[in-house]
Amino acid sequence: MTDSRFYRREGPFSLARLAEISGGSLSDAAMAERMITDVAPLYRAGADDISFLDNRKYVQAFETCAAGACVVHPELAEMAPAGMGLIITPEPYRAYAVIAHAFYPQSRVVAEVSPHAVIDPTAKVGEGCRIEAGVVIGAGVEIGARCHICANAVLREGVVLGNDCTIGSNATISYAILGNKVWIHAGAAIGQDGFGFAMGPKGHLKVPQLGRVIIQDDVEIGANTTIDRGAGPDTVIGEGCRIDNLVQIGHNVELGRGCVLVAQVGVSGSTRLADFVVAGGQSGITGHLKIGAGARIGAQSGVMRDVPAGQTVIGSPAVPAKEHWRQIGMLERLAAKKHGA
Amino acid sequence: MTDSRFYRREGPFSLARLAEISGGSLSDAAMAERMITDVAPLYRAGADDISFLDNRKYVQAFETCAAGACVVHPELAEMAPAGMGLIITPEPYRAYAVIAHAFYPQSRVVAEVSPHAVIDPTAKVGEGCRIEAGVVIGAGVEIGARCHICANAVLREGVVLGNDCTIGSNATISYAILGNKVWIHAGAAIGQDGFGFAMGPKGHLKVPQLGRVIIQDDVEIGANTTIDRGAGPDTVIGEGCRIDNLVQIGHNVELGRGCVLVAQVGVSGSTRLADFVVAGGQSGITGHLKIGAGARIGAQSGVMRDVPAGQTVIGSPAVPAKEHWRQIGMLERLAAKKHGA
Amino acid sequence: MTDSRFYRREGPFSLARLAEISGGSLSDAAMAERMITDVAPLYRAGADDISFLDNRKYVQAFETCAAGACVVHPELAEMAPAGMGLIITPEPYRAYAVIAHAFYPQSRVVAEVSPHAVIDPTAKVGEGCRIEAGVVIGAGVEIGARCHICANAVLREGVVLGNDCTIGSNATISYAILGNKVWIHAGAAIGQDGFGFAMGPKGHLKVPQLGRVIIQDDVEIGANTTIDRGAGPDTVIGEGCRIDNLVQIGHNVELGRGCVLVAQVGVSGSTRLADFVVAGGQSGITGHLKIGAGARIGAQSGVMRDVPAGQTVIGSPAVPAKEHWRQIGMLERLAAKKHGA
Repeated sequence: MTDSRFYRREGPFSLARLAEISGGSLSDAAMAERMITDVAPLYRAGADDISFLDNRKYVQAFETCAAGACVVHPELAEMAPAGMGLIITPEPYRAYAVIAHAFYPQSRVVAEVSPHAVIDPTAKVGEGCRIEAGVVIGAGVEIGARCHICANAVLREGVVLGNDCTIGSNATISYAILGNKVWIHAGAAIGQDGFGFAMGPKGHLKVPQLGRVIIQDDVEIGANTTIDRGAGPDTVIGEGCRIDNLVQIGHNVELGRGCVLVAQVGVSGSTRLADFVVAGGQSGITGHLKIGAGARIGAQSGVMRDVPAGQTVIGSPAVPAKEHWRQIGMLERLAAKKHGA
Repeated sequence: MTDSRFYRREGPFSLARLAEISGGSLSDAAMAERMITDVAPLYRAGADDISFLDNRKYVQAFETCAAGACVVHPELAEMAPAGMGLIITPEPYRAYAVIAHAFYPQSRVVAEVSPHAVIDPTAKVGEGCRIEAGVVIGAGVEIGARCHICANAVLREGVVLGNDCTIGSNATISYAILGNKVWIHAGAAIGQDGFGFAMGPKGHLKVPQLGRVIIQDDVEIGANTTIDRGAGPDTVIGEGCRIDNLVQIGHNVELGRGCVLVAQVGVSGSTRLADFVVAGGQSGITGHLKIGAGARIGAQSGVMRDVPAGQTVIGSPAVPAKEHWRQIGMLERLAAKKHGA
Repeated sequence: MTDSRFYRREGPFSLARLAEISGGSLSDAAMAERMITDVAPLYRAGADDISFLDNRKYVQAFETCAAGACVVHPELAEMAPAGMGLIITPEPYRAYAVIAHAFYPQSRVVAEVSPHAVIDPTAKVGEGCRIEAGVVIGAGVEIGARCHICANAVLREGVVLGNDCTIGSNATISYAILGNKVWIHAGAAIGQDGFGFAMGPKGHLKVPQLGRVIIQDDVEIGANTTIDRGAGPDTVIGEGCRIDNLVQIGHNVELGRGCVLVAQVGVSGSTRLADFVVAGGQSGITGHLKIGAGARIGAQSGVMRDVPAGQTVIGSPAVPAKEHWRQIGMLERLAAKKHGA
């Protein structure tokens, strides 16, 4: 059961309805009218809850689970305890997401501009926006409809937001043009100067940073993540990207559509990621590289060369995954042999 | 001497008194009445100061130190310069901490609610709190006694704080229940959505994040650290944990009591650390793992498997420490041989 | 062309003038009076723009570039397309920086104290400062002339700023003394408690942190970077240092002049870097080390031992660069041989 301090629930819904909206199929038509009142994790779900099994690590929890219903892959359905209602689908996590959205729809933004926000008279705020206390909005800013600007966020001069954006508390946005449905979490810093200077033994000379950050539609950017604006070209975050917390993106970087950067990733200046690249936590990519579409970069890897489309690389320096595991295996064997282990 | 802009000092105290409160023993009873007016580092301490020696790297500085007194381990006491008063204890750093607290007690929170804070009328603020300018406190928030909420911090709807908590400037707290004596430093972001979505080639579907962050008593969380709330279960930070700056903690993570996470550590979703686990700087732990009580993870390590209680692991991927050093040593020897070095 | 929402341009300038101010030489005197109106990247520059070639990766873009002029190294000048005006210099990036500053000079701070800033009556604000809305300035703070304190930044009690400093939005500065021309970007947290406590099985005892952060002249500190104050000694950032985003600097660390720390670097407590040390992205340096002048630390490296002046180290644990590449090469060969590749 979710905490009513923080969450308001819709429902209940019949299993048949949940199967329908999630695109899954009901394992037993007799259970179509079973009413479900909430979602819950496997270990905590009761007779009125629906849960899901996506990671095989949790099969045991599934087998002993008391949930009234569960979303599950066809291959694992037979492990279900007797009496559990099953919604069967090849994509249980996605189906669960749809169901959870039904119980907990994203709350509509309540239009309200706090008298404690400071909004420059030249800024334009669209219809239905919520601007909380302590927000500071600079000259010439343009905000689309139904945006939610959380307490103490700052939108500096000239920033543009599309519709339905959320800017978290204490985030700072400058030199940036955002599309629709962009969600920036608390404390993110977007648009500051890139790390550009001409190094020299007598001191480092700053290079003016003259570009912007362009964030396309439907992008989510994590808490305390930093994205520098372009040095002359723009820094571009493609449609549908998901960027986790504490990620660093240097100037002139371009991400294609649907890229996923896990927490604490760093992408150095002028590197380009094509569509749907996935970079694991704490991995780093040096500057001026090209990472092909669908490439996957292992956690903590250090990418120093271009990566072809579709390739998985791991290690620091990163090499193709097979080669990496071969090296790791060989190292283990040699070290064991040497010590007669 | 500390800077009077920032610090106010108590004292002086006699050496006998300092030995007593710190639980150490005085090496020379004749020095019991020597008066000490301040603490100071070895290289800077004078005749009226007390210093400490904890790290053997600084034995040389100890031998030439001008401090009137020093806290020291029995094994190193004989290296002391003539005339120095010694407080001898097997835990010099801990004893020094107690003594430093005597000279510089944590200042009592001065009760005051700034007229420049914005506090929702439904929020409850306990006795003796200090709420600084620019703080924004949302609907239904409950704050215990003697809390200090620093300028421009944000406590979003429904957040609960126990007694004696400190929330640093520009920190953002949401969807969180905090115990007593929790100290969150500037810029930390606690409680935002976890990185949860069903990936797909046509786009990534957000999964509603329905849990909370539970922070138990006596926890310290560093500047700009990020802790995501649970996806359905809660994210839990156990009593007495110490979390450094720029650490990332994913949704559903559970830390036991007294864990220590050094700066820039990342813990991926649903991983559980038992009590008193220590993770070195920049190390990462992948998701859905179990790290046993008292395990130690080397700096920059990448943990991909469960770690048994008490084990030390190092490397990326992390292996038991002995194995790691064996591999490193072998690699060095082979590379040297190959090149006739 | 830069976005007029964000940038205001000076000029035009003749090529002769640009050569003069940048210290380069004009390849063709006949082009001295060619008028240049803007700077632009190679791939986007037109007949009225000046661009630059610094990284050999972009020679191809240079060869087909339509820029009216370009700053280039003497060795690459001959690759220029016909008709392009050339400013030739051994330091093209530095010369470009000077030229870009001519077109886009740093805007003068417009003196203005927002009525929505909260400034303690005991604080002193110098002439010509701009203090934006939502800024909170504590008791006893001293701010020099022409400083720019951006919206929602916090300067806590006793902080001192020299002249011409910029403090980004949502940054928090405490227990710190800043020189002149210090630029701190959005969200940085400077001066909070270091990670100091005496560990123990029954709990960790906090050690009072009694030092400051001293930041010398002409330092730039990136967004969401964290710098802890000293524990007793000070944390010191030397003149001219450039620190990128999301960097962590522990208590008592000392950086010499002109050090460059790339994003996500971590420097543990009490380590000293001499002048002009460069640390690549995501590298880490353990505590109590000495890194010699001009040393270079590779990206993602983990430094566990002192590094002599001028040495380049790479790897985790870090070893001299040659040794590192030898190890990497041997590992690749052995793994390939083992598998008959």
